[in-house]
Amino acid sequence: MAPAYLVYITTADEEQARRIGRALVERKLAACVNIVPSIRSIYWWQGQMVDEGEALLLVKTLEGALDGIEQTVQELHSYTVPAISAVPVERLHGPYLRWMHEVMGFHDLPGA
Amino acid sequence: MAPAYLVYITTADEEQARRIGRALVERKLAACVNIVPSIRSIYWWQGQMVDEGEALLLVKTLEGALDGIEQTVQELHSYTVPAISAVPVERLHGPYLRWMHEVMGFHDLPGA
Amino acid sequence: MAPAYLVYITTADEEQARRIGRALVERKLAACVNIVPSIRSIYWWQGQMVDEGEALLLVKTLEGALDGIEQTVQELHSYTVPAISAVPVERLHGPYLRWMHEVMGFHDLPGA
Repeated sequence: MAPAYLVYITTADEEQARRIGRALVERKLAACVNIVPSIRSIYWWQGQMVDEGEALLLVKTLEGALDGIEQTVQELHSYTVPAISAVPVERLHGPYLRWMHEVMGFHDLPGA
Repeated sequence: MAPAYLVYITTADEEQARRIGRALVERKLAACVNIVPSIRSIYWWQGQMVDEGEALLLVKTLEGALDGIEQTVQELHSYTVPAISAVPVERLHGPYLRWMHEVMGFHDLPGA
Repeated sequence: MAPAYLVYITTADEEQARRIGRALVERKLAACVNIVPSIRSIYWWQGQMVDEGEALLLVKTLEGALDGIEQTVQELHSYTVPAISAVPVERLHGPYLRWMHEVMGFHDLPGA
């Protein structure tokens, strides 16, 4: 089975999270996406401390889709430098991992 | 000390997240659970794209409890194939890790 | 490049999450922090099961800042034993990782 990942992506707002999330699922680059609609974010940007609202997109996916996720996010995200952080899932409920492979069409991959 | 994990579980709603979360804490399978009450989830299910409300249950636990967590979630969850993703915590604040071992009764385990 | 981490910290409320988050960004111990303002937490405390509101602070940082993050959280957090869990980010979007190094002043570190 291909290793699973949880990809953590912040977006400008909920609508952008849903647009990117839908595209990832439609393109079979994610089995499922979860959106936390309203978070606060604090960071430096061009010498100023920014404190603003964002949304959080959490993507359940498999290793072979990580390149495609980066390309899709860059294509659809409004930021020039979006945060796309892939965290390894060390252990995933067996039946769910199999369902991920089916729904993402990964059955033909070596090790899938 | 036993390795720590953050287990990421989506549930049908907040009430189900609390029922499962309480059971995990009662059964000493988790030191603490956090619930994000309202998220949006998008995924394929039987050929249809689903876009619905769910809740997110985040479980702070130790390696020896992962089997028990899977069994408890399968017992109490309304889905036939729940998502149960265990992410490794590479570094945890020492006093908190010790508290987890105490509160989960892990002091007797090898390496605990 | 220094390895990246996502540090998961629960706080008493949103205000405390913002105070700690701002301090981490100001002290260049985090490139960005995200706050989920309202979560529920269930855990044992001194023999009682607690079920209360908290907030969730998620910190995007680099390995060299983990000690400083622990010290800052202990300094500013209202709990004597705060939960500070560092999860490894196995793969991060290249331009964002470079931006993290710049904004945190990590360009001079070995491997940075």
